[in-house]
Amino acid sequence: MSLEIVSQSRCFEGTQFVYRHLSVETGTPMRFAAYVPPQAAQEDLPVVWFLSGLTCTEENVTVKAGAQRVASELGLILVAPDTSPRGEGVPGDPEGSYDFGLGAGFYVDATEEPWARNYRMRSYLERELPALVAEELPADMARQGIMGHSMGGHGALTIALRNPDRFAAVSAFAPITSPLSCPWGEKALSRYLGPDRATWREYDACALIEDGARLPELLVDQGTADGFLESQLKPELLEEACRKADMPLTLRRQEGYDHSYFFISTFIEDHLRWHAARF
Amino acid sequence: MSLEIVSQSRCFEGTQFVYRHLSVETGTPMRFAAYVPPQAAQEDLPVVWFLSGLTCTEENVTVKAGAQRVASELGLILVAPDTSPRGEGVPGDPEGSYDFGLGAGFYVDATEEPWARNYRMRSYLERELPALVAEELPADMARQGIMGHSMGGHGALTIALRNPDRFAAVSAFAPITSPLSCPWGEKALSRYLGPDRATWREYDACALIEDGARLPELLVDQGTADGFLESQLKPELLEEACRKADMPLTLRRQEGYDHSYFFISTFIEDHLRWHAARF
Repeated sequence: MSLEIVSQSRCFEGTQFVYRHLSVETGTPMRFAAYVPPQAAQEDLPVVWFLSGLTCTEENVTVKAGAQRVASELGLILVAPDTSPRGEGVPGDPEGSYDFGLGAGFYVDATEEPWARNYRMRSYLERELPALVAEELPADMARQGIMGHSMGGHGALTIALRNPDRFAAVSAFAPITSPLSCPWGEKALSRYLGPDRATWREYDACALIEDGARLPELLVDQGTADGFLESQLKPELLEEACRKADMPLTLRRQEGYDHSYFFISTFIEDHLRWHAARF
Repeated sequence: MSLEIVSQSRCFEGTQFVYRHLSVETGTPMRFAAYVPPQAAQEDLPVVWFLSGLTCTEENVTVKAGAQRVASELGLILVAPDTSPRGEGVPGDPEGSYDFGLGAGFYVDATEEPWARNYRMRSYLERELPALVAEELPADMARQGIMGHSMGGHGALTIALRNPDRFAAVSAFAPITSPLSCPWGEKALSRYLGPDRATWREYDACALIEDGARLPELLVDQGTADGFLESQLKPELLEEACRKADMPLTLRRQEGYDHSYFFISTFIEDHLRWHAARF
């Protein structure tokens, strides 16, 4: 597989890369960002995946979260994928909404037309991109963590719950906890996966836990002034699912914080240290 | 004067504000960002001004630099103004270039038409906005510092050199050191100020120093992989002017760093600590 460097900038003594490659899964060129800290000159390093939210690309967390400073100190490679396929011939939302189609892949393998050919973000992130990262970056794939924000928090939780042996640490910022139980999820999954809600369950963190998936522990931060808290995010559903499953969840309700990167940038250092302590 | 809150987000236990107000100087609504750290609940705090570069608004440094973390720790108010007047009736560059007109005010009071009415960024930043900040924010105006990037580095240096008693600390990231001696400066100042280059000297850090302006010390970071280094920025001119004037300059050539916010975010903590130590 060939990896093209779109840009590279020195940052905290390491290098912030943006790469492009042709994805077999999505059938499109895909971009992702990777921060490689200075310790990579000596040894292969742990990888922390950051999955982004609705409307985002690989760029948002890369320029807004301030994560490179901490990754440079701790010796972590940060990988930030895009949130959907893009480009010529990729169907978006005919209505042009922000919460479906381009920038809103919801980390699923779509089964419905016209989405099924390109919207294969699950397979892209569970198989294709990890193989590429393992091959092309100074990465120790035996030490991986995953985190994400909002739709990307949903992505991080569900990918980890389906692949519990892959990740030493899993965390989320303001995640969508149950696409089965919120308007964003109902809209996206009904179109990508069709009306049979049984097929949605492998893309719903709460349903996965109900159905027996387990992780040793979870860290979740949620701002109390988040405008999507009650209608879309519903951390209480995750709390209840974890309680019933006896699965350790550290859910921190952060007073006065909203859904923005001002919230993420405040707490991402905590998350990265929490991940690093588990590698 | 009335200040409208455009947005506010909790960030590192303080608040990131974006404000809008009607400027008498520019004759337009102007926006600026202000981070107010938690210590402001107890006392008035020092103010650090950050002036941005070409194409930027108040947003770039606010979302990309990661400065709030350090400002929260040190108890600093960060103020980031816009880089030009904007809006209906404000003339931009008829050719639509990025380096003149909107987003490229060069921190001057224009004397030439059609720019003279609105392009009054010098008076806006030397008088109007400080008065507003003093009145509306929990600011201790006896403790101010100023820094900037590229065109904003030029702005910070020249405002400080013309007002040496106002700022306890002055620093810059990859500043334009001499608009008299680079294409960006020649293009902008010849249009804003006309062909008489004698009138440009109060907007040129090197010329101000040659003409007798002095600051107790300066801190400048410059990346060696900055694509504008040789053609536009020319730190060696500032070095030479400071040497001749016996003015202390700490010029750090940062190996491999470019002109981006990846560079600024790496070193802004150093700058903020350097400022705080001088308040």
